[in-house]
Amino acid sequence: MKRLLLILVLASMALTTSAQGGRNFARTEFPRVNDDNSVTFIHNAKDAKWVTLIGDFTLQDGKDQRRFEMTRNERGVWSVTTPPLRSEIYSYNFIVDGVRICDGGNMMRLRDGENHFSSVIVGGDRGDLYEVQDVPHGELHTVWYSSPTLEKDRRAVIYTPASYASGKGKYPVLYLLHGMSGDETAWAELGRTAQIMDNLIAQGKCKEMIVVMTNGNAWQQSAPTHSGGRAMQHYRNRQQGEASFEDSFGDVIAYVEKNFRVIKKRQARAIAGLSMGGGHSFNISRLYPKTFDYVALFSAAVRGFNDDKVQAGLKAQRDNGFKLYWIACGTDDFLYKLNCDYMKYLDSIDFPYTWRESDGGHTWRNWRIYLAELVPMLFTE
Amino acid sequence: MKRLLLILVLASMALTTSAQGGRNFARTEFPRVNDDNSVTFIHNAKDAKWVTLIGDFTLQDGKDQRRFEMTRNERGVWSVTTPPLRSEIYSYNFIVDGVRICDGGNMMRLRDGENHFSSVIVGGDRGDLYEVQDVPHGELHTVWYSSPTLEKDRRAVIYTPASYASGKGKYPVLYLLHGMSGDETAWAELGRTAQIMDNLIAQGKCKEMIVVMTNGNAWQQSAPTHSGGRAMQHYRNRQQGEASFEDSFGDVIAYVEKNFRVIKKRQARAIAGLSMGGGHSFNISRLYPKTFDYVALFSAAVRGFNDDKVQAGLKAQRDNGFKLYWIACGTDDFLYKLNCDYMKYLDSIDFPYTWRESDGGHTWRNWRIYLAELVPMLFTE
Repeated sequence: MKRLLLILVLASMALTTSAQGGRNFARTEFPRVNDDNSVTFIHNAKDAKWVTLIGDFTLQDGKDQRRFEMTRNERGVWSVTTPPLRSEIYSYNFIVDGVRICDGGNMMRLRDGENHFSSVIVGGDRGDLYEVQDVPHGELHTVWYSSPTLEKDRRAVIYTPASYASGKGKYPVLYLLHGMSGDETAWAELGRTAQIMDNLIAQGKCKEMIVVMTNGNAWQQSAPTHSGGRAMQHYRNRQQGEASFEDSFGDVIAYVEKNFRVIKKRQARAIAGLSMGGGHSFNISRLYPKTFDYVALFSAAVRGFNDDKVQAGLKAQRDNGFKLYWIACGTDDFLYKLNCDYMKYLDSIDFPYTWRESDGGHTWRNWRIYLAELVPMLFTE
Repeated sequence: MKRLLLILVLASMALTTSAQGGRNFARTEFPRVNDDNSVTFIHNAKDAKWVTLIGDFTLQDGKDQRRFEMTRNERGVWSVTTPPLRSEIYSYNFIVDGVRICDGGNMMRLRDGENHFSSVIVGGDRGDLYEVQDVPHGELHTVWYSSPTLEKDRRAVIYTPASYASGKGKYPVLYLLHGMSGDETAWAELGRTAQIMDNLIAQGKCKEMIVVMTNGNAWQQSAPTHSGGRAMQHYRNRQQGEASFEDSFGDVIAYVEKNFRVIKKRQARAIAGLSMGGGHSFNISRLYPKTFDYVALFSAAVRGFNDDKVQAGLKAQRDNGFKLYWIACGTDDFLYKLNCDYMKYLDSIDFPYTWRESDGGHTWRNWRIYLAELVPMLFTE
C-alpha cells in the first residue's frame, strides 16, 4: 500500500512539474520519515545522469553512513529510502551531476558557514529534544551591541526563557560560542539551542537561564545572510585590528548586563564553546579572572597551553576556584589528542576538571549532545 | 583587465571544484555587482546541458527582465552578466537542466513561503535602504504568544528600535501583516523591515516605533523552518477551527501591550498588510473599532466589501474617524481592479482615504517601497 502510494505521488509530482515548466516546488510530503525511522527522499530531475543523497546520517546500529545513491524512475523522479536511522536532526544535500544542492521540496534548511543544507528530524528520542514541542517557549533576540574594543557594532543572538518576558526576576547567563566558519546564528540554527533549552526547562532538567550566542570572528560585524553584500565582504575579509575576540569579550558582558535582567556574579556566569569557540572559552575563562564559575570546552581547540604565560594563567584560574570545568570530545575528533594532552597538563598542576568522552567526531551531533548534557549541571548551587 | 580577471577566477574555480569532487562551495566574489550596476553570475556545472538565471530583475530603463540564458565556458563554468540594473534587492535562482536551485556560491538567501531564493543587493539608491548600514540597529525579537482564540501558541517577529533596549520610554506600534503563502518571517526577511526602519529612523525620516510581524495563517503555529517536521505538517494542513486570524487579533495586541513598552492608544496603533494581509488589515481595522488611527492596504485582497454587514462596519469606521487610510497598488497588479472598485465604494460613502498608485505588480519590490513610504506618515501628531 505504501509502495503504491509512493508511486502515485511520484507520478503526480512528475505531471505537476512538467505542467509548470522549470518549477520544481512540488508540495510533497518528502522527505518522509517512515514508521520504522527509515527516511524516503525524492528529487525530481528527469535530465540528470546521477543523483546522490549525502548527509550526516547514522543508522540504528550506530554506524555512520554519508552517501546513498538515488535511483530514477521512468518519469525522471529520483528516490531512495535509507535504512532505519537513529532519532536525530539530520542535514543533507543532493548531488546532481556533481553539483551539490538543497532539496527543493523541503522548506527546512540550515546554514553552516557558507554552506546550506536541507534538514529532517527523526523523532522519538534526541530528535524530540530538537523539535518544537508543546511547552512554554523562550524568545530569541537578534541584537546589535557596541564593541569599542573591536571598533564596530556587532550582532548576537540571545535566548531568554519563557518566564523572562512577563517576569521581573534576574537570571544566570550561559555564553555559548561557535566554531571556525560559524557565526552568531550557528548555535540557534544548527545547535537547536532554543528547542533544547525550552524542552529541558519544561522537563525540569535544568535551571532557567539566558543564553548569549556571539559572533566569534573579530573581523565580522555579523552573519552576512541578513546583511547583504557589504557585510559579505566583511564576512570574508579576515583583516582585523590588533584586538582579538577574547580582548573584546568584556564588551559583550557589559552589553548583556546592562540590557538584560541578569545576576551579575561569577556563580551565575557560564561560558562554553565548540572547536574555535572552545579555544575562546579556554582563553576567556582564564583571562577574565573570577568571572565564570562554569566553563565547558566542546571538541575544543585548546591551543597554546604550553606557553608560560598561559600556564601561569591556568594556575591562577585553579587557585581562584570554580564550580565546573567540563571537557568533552569525541574519540574520532581530530582534536581528541590535543584535548588528551591538555588534560595531562591539567593533571600535572592539579587543575580540577570533568572529562566527557563520547564517540563520534567533530560534528554538530556531538555539540548538541554536549549542550543538552551541560546545561543541567549549570547554576545548581 | 576585468575580463581577464573573470577568466582567471572561473578557471581557478573549475580547478578547485574538480579537486573537491562533488563540492561546489567555492569562495567566490559572485554574484558580483560591477561598476555600472550590471551583475555577473556564475554557476559551476560541467555536466549541465543548459543553465538559466531567473529573478525579479529590473533594468535601468525600468523594464523588467526575468530570464537570462547563461553560457558555458570550456571548463564547465556557466556565466552571464546582466545589463545595468536598478538599485534594488533581487531574488534569483538558477534553472539547471529544468531544476530550480539556489546559487551555491552565495550565502545570502531568502525564503518566500516554500520557495528559497538567492539574493543580491545592487546599491546606490533603494538598495542602500535595504542594506545594513553603519547606523544604530534595532532588535528583532522572535517570540511566542498565547492565542486563546486559536487555542495554540503562535510565533511572531517583533522589531524594536535601537533606543528601546536601554531606554524607558513607550513607543507606538505598527502591526505589519504578510500575504498568502507567507508567514511571520516574511516581512523581516523579504521585506527588509529591520533595515528599512533602522535606516529611516537614522535619517530622521520616521518616528521610532515597534513593528509587530505576525503569522496570519490561523492554522499555523509558526514557520516550519525553525520547527521541524511536526510544524511542517501544521504549516500545510489548513484545517482550522471556527476562529479566523482576524478573530484572534486581540490576542496579539494583548501580548504586545503586556510585554513591550507601548503607548496603548489608537493614535499610537497602525495596521498595514500586503495582499491577504491587506485584506486582514481591511477587516481588523473595521472589526476592532477605535483601535487603529492608521491603516494601510498594500496590493490588498479587499474582498467582501459588497456585504451589508461589512458596509455597515465601514460606515461606522468612517464615523469613528482615523488619521490615515492608505491604499497602495501597482497598475499591473491582478488586484488593481478590485482596489479601484473598493475605492469607488469608499467614494460613495464619503470614506476618506489616500490613494497611492505605483507601477509594477504584486511583488515584494512594491511592498518594500510602500513600507518605506508609509512609515514616515505614521504617528506624526
